[in-house]
Amino acid sequence: MYKIRLIWVGKTQETYLKKGIEIYLAKLKHYVHIELLEIKPNSATQDDQNLIRLKESQKILSQIQPHETTIVLDEKGQQMPSVNLASWLEELKTNQHDRINFVIGGAFGIDKSLFQQSSLLSFSAMTFTHQMIRLMLVEQVYRAFTIINSEPYHH
Amino acid sequence: MYKIRLIWVGKTQETYLKKGIEIYLAKLKHYVHIELLEIKPNSATQDDQNLIRLKESQKILSQIQPHETTIVLDEKGQQMPSVNLASWLEELKTNQHDRINFVIGGAFGIDKSLFQQSSLLSFSAMTFTHQMIRLMLVEQVYRAFTIINSEPYHH
Repeated sequence: MYKIRLIWVGKTQETYLKKGIEIYLAKLKHYVHIELLEIKPNSATQDDQNLIRLKESQKILSQIQPHETTIVLDEKGQQMPSVNLASWLEELKTNQHDRINFVIGGAFGIDKSLFQQSSLLSFSAMTFTHQMIRLMLVEQVYRAFTIINSEPYHH
Repeated sequence: MYKIRLIWVGKTQETYLKKGIEIYLAKLKHYVHIELLEIKPNSATQDDQNLIRLKESQKILSQIQPHETTIVLDEKGQQMPSVNLASWLEELKTNQHDRINFVIGGAFGIDKSLFQQSSLLSFSAMTFTHQMIRLMLVEQVYRAFTIINSEPYHH
């Protein structure tokens, strides 16, 4: 069985989001080995947005091995119903990938160097804060595993 | 200026979601008259899902005047970027509608009788809990008003 790793930039600031994320991570541990990697954000006072994006993406890339599967959350990505995400994760399990990384960029997004080595997944045509997307991600990964395991989960 | 009313079925159970919703409602009060209407859910032990859906939708309909604008959140609805939601709300303001209702159904969804009198808006191809969608809705309505008022808001 593979491991799932969530990678995002900076700590979750809002207490209520942090709490919700913790709840879903605890639930997820019943289904899968899941870990969280928080990348240190670059300072907006020193660099411009492009440079921050590049540096943060390079730090993320340095943590990922070439054979791992990486799914970056981005508005330009593909949207899919929750059941399709579940099928995708199920399929990756069969293929014996040893780690799946879900990546959420920082306030200024992701550099193209990281896009090139990843699958892009979009949650919505709308823009959400990069911190709220974290909660949405853990909820969807949890939902995927309840679907994979045919377990009930509320609507 | 119109009023915005959020209508959903039942209280928000999860403390962290409730907290997040409260934070956005407080922020929204700086921009618009906003109110919240929680409809009493029907008991799942007494009725089947279709009947619950019908009864809850009728309770919602009974609270809406014919001249009001009603936007129901539903997976079958149209998706749009946040800037388009902002334009839509801006347009409704110009048209002097006196109340805009955003409706989120209960655990078993919305009956077609309510769909017929509403615009349908989808947030995602994915399914989220009907309680988490509340947080996503208040965040998007808040984001829309920061866009309308050209105010900065994080990514």
